[in-house]
Amino acid sequence: MGKQLSIDDLLTPVAIIDETIMETNVRVTQNYFDQIGRAFRPHIKTHKIPSLAALQIAFGAQGINCQKISEAEVFADAGFNDILITFNMMGAERLERLKVLNARVDLQVVADNPVVVEGLASRFEANQPLKVLVECDTGAGRNGVQTPDAAVTLARQIAEQAGLRFHGILTYPKPNSESDVEAFFAETIRLLKKTGLECPVVSHGGSPSLFDSELVKSATEHRAGTYIFNDRSLVRAGLCALDDCAMNVIATVVSRPTETRAVLDAGSKALTSDLLGFPDHGLLVDYPDASIQALSEEHAVVDLSNSKKKPEIGERVRIIPNHTCVVSNLFDRLVFHRDGVVTRIEPVAARGQVV
Amino acid sequence: MGKQLSIDDLLTPVAIIDETIMETNVRVTQNYFDQIGRAFRPHIKTHKIPSLAALQIAFGAQGINCQKISEAEVFADAGFNDILITFNMMGAERLERLKVLNARVDLQVVADNPVVVEGLASRFEANQPLKVLVECDTGAGRNGVQTPDAAVTLARQIAEQAGLRFHGILTYPKPNSESDVEAFFAETIRLLKKTGLECPVVSHGGSPSLFDSELVKSATEHRAGTYIFNDRSLVRAGLCALDDCAMNVIATVVSRPTETRAVLDAGSKALTSDLLGFPDHGLLVDYPDASIQALSEEHAVVDLSNSKKKPEIGERVRIIPNHTCVVSNLFDRLVFHRDGVVTRIEPVAARGQVV
Repeated sequence: MGKQLSIDDLLTPVAIIDETIMETNVRVTQNYFDQIGRAFRPHIKTHKIPSLAALQIAFGAQGINCQKISEAEVFADAGFNDILITFNMMGAERLERLKVLNARVDLQVVADNPVVVEGLASRFEANQPLKVLVECDTGAGRNGVQTPDAAVTLARQIAEQAGLRFHGILTYPKPNSESDVEAFFAETIRLLKKTGLECPVVSHGGSPSLFDSELVKSATEHRAGTYIFNDRSLVRAGLCALDDCAMNVIATVVSRPTETRAVLDAGSKALTSDLLGFPDHGLLVDYPDASIQALSEEHAVVDLSNSKKKPEIGERVRIIPNHTCVVSNLFDRLVFHRDGVVTRIEPVAARGQVV
Repeated sequence: MGKQLSIDDLLTPVAIIDETIMETNVRVTQNYFDQIGRAFRPHIKTHKIPSLAALQIAFGAQGINCQKISEAEVFADAGFNDILITFNMMGAERLERLKVLNARVDLQVVADNPVVVEGLASRFEANQPLKVLVECDTGAGRNGVQTPDAAVTLARQIAEQAGLRFHGILTYPKPNSESDVEAFFAETIRLLKKTGLECPVVSHGGSPSLFDSELVKSATEHRAGTYIFNDRSLVRAGLCALDDCAMNVIATVVSRPTETRAVLDAGSKALTSDLLGFPDHGLLVDYPDASIQALSEEHAVVDLSNSKKKPEIGERVRIIPNHTCVVSNLFDRLVFHRDGVVTRIEPVAARGQVV
C-alpha cells in the first residue's frame, strides 16, 4: 500500500471536490424529484466529467443535458445515450455532426426560431428524425419564443418537417418565477392540444429554483447543473448551506505586503471573474470577514481590514467560488477527496468544448 | 493544392488572430525599445504559444516572462533559455521543479518577502545559484515590498544566501504612474549602491504604460504581454486603435427573441467575465452601438436598442474582447489568418498551466 495522498500535498491552486458532499447533493436532489414524480435531467456543464454524470444516472436521473454538440459527443463516446442539447444548433458542420450523433443516441435539441428549424429540417430525414423542443422565454430574457402563441406556431413548423419531431417545450427560467413559468406552459399546452399536437416533454430548469420545481405543475422534467457541487451563489439563493458546497479552490498565501493585504496564487485563470452580483471574488472559508477584492490573472488580492484573524505567508486557504461551473472549465483535472484524503483525480473530459 | 480555409468556414465560437496586425504590434513595440535602448521581455501569458514567443524573440526581445512554473516548463521544453518567472515560488514540489528548470535555462524569479527567500535558499546551492529580483509595490497594490528601504533589506537577505544571487528589482506598475515608479527605483538603486550591492536588472512592466516606459529612466528592461494582440482595454488606454487589435472572437447570432435582443453562441466560457471596468462584455466590431449586456456560460445577450443596424439569425459577428489574455486561456487552439484566409491553427500549449 502506498502512502495516502492528502489534499495538503497538492500544488496550488487546485480545485477539489468533497465526494461525500457531492453524493449527498446528488441524492437529496434526486430524492426530491422522485418524491414529486418528475424526471430529473442533470446538466453536465458544471463538471464535464462522465463518471459524475454516471453517478447522477445511477441515483435515478433520466438522462443528461449538454449545451454544445462537442460536449454531447464526449458524453456519447462515454456511453450516455439519452442526451438533450439545450442550444440552437446552426451551421453546416455542426448539423452534420448532429446527424451523426442522432444516429448513435436518443437525442433531443431545442429551437426558438424558424431559421434554426429550417436548418435542422434541411439536414434530417424521416427515416431517422430528430426530436425538437421549443424553447420558451418565460422571463429570463435570454433565448426563447416570447408567447405561447409563438411557441405553438413554431411547434407546428417543426411538426410539418419530415425529418423533425415536435417533442415538447422547455424553458430556462428567471429565479423565483414559478407562477410565470406555469402560466406560460399551461397556456401553451392548452393551445397545442387545440392544434392536435402532442407535447410529451415539458422541461423546466435551473439550480436556484430546484426545490420549487413542484410549483410548475405542468412540467414533466427538471434540468439543473450547479446543484451537484453548489457554490456561493446557491448559498445566497437559499438553496444550500456553506457546508453543502462540494467544491473548494485551495490557494496559497504568497505575500502579505501590508498589514491588511494578503495575496493568493489563484487569479482569474483559476477562479474566473464571474461575480454573479457579489462584490468580491469568492468566499474564504476560514476567513469569512476577509474579502477577495481584486483578481489579476494569477493573483488574488485579499483585503484583511475587517478580519481579525490574518493568514500567514505560506498558509493554504480554501475558497468557495462564486460560480462553480466556470471554475471546472479552467482546470484540466479536478481532485476528489474524502475527509482530505485524495480518492481520485479526474480529467475534465469536456473542458474547452465550446462549439 | 487544397482549397483555402476561410475564417468564415470555422465553427463558432472561435478565437482568431490576424497575423499581419500581430506582427505589426510586435515590430512597433520592439522598435520602440530598440530606439530607447532598453531590453524588452514579452510576457507569454497572453498567448501561451511557443511560436509566438519565437516571433517576439526573432524581432529582438531579450527573453521571455512567465507567471507560473508550469508555463515556464512548457516554454523551456520548446527551447527558450532566458526565462523570468514573476511570481513568488513556494511549496516543496514547486521548488524542486524550479531547481530542475534552473539547471536547464537561464532563470530568474522574484521575491517580495523573507519567507519566500528562505524557501528558495533552502533549495538552491552555490554550484548552481538562482537569480532573484526583489518585487516592489510602486502603487499597484498587488505584490511587492512597500518601500525602497524594505527592498534593500530583502536584497541583502537574498545576497547572503549561498544558493541565491540578488539580481535586481522589478515592479508591475499602476497605469500612468511613471514618476512614482522612477522615484521608487532611483531611491532603491541609491540605497543598494550605498550597501555595495550591484543591481543588474531594473524591470518595469505593463502594456498600458508601454510607450511611456522611457519616463522610467532607471529601468533596464520592460515586460508586457497584451500588446501582441491588443484588446478593448488597451484601446481605451490610448495605447492602440481598434484596427490594431489582432484577436477577434467570431460568434454566430443564434436567436433574435425580440426586436432589440440578439443572442450569440459565445458566453463566459469563450469571452470570460472580465469587465476591466467596461459596462459590457466586449465590442461588436460591426455593431458598435449594440451592447453585450449579459453573458451566461454559452450565451451572450446583446441589447440592440441603440443600434439602427440589427444582425440577422445566422449572421457571424466579430467581437474584440475586453481582455485578450484570459480569452486565449479558454481555447484549446487559436486560429491565425491573413485577410481572412487561415494560415495555421496553433494549440495554446501552456493553456491551463495554473501551478
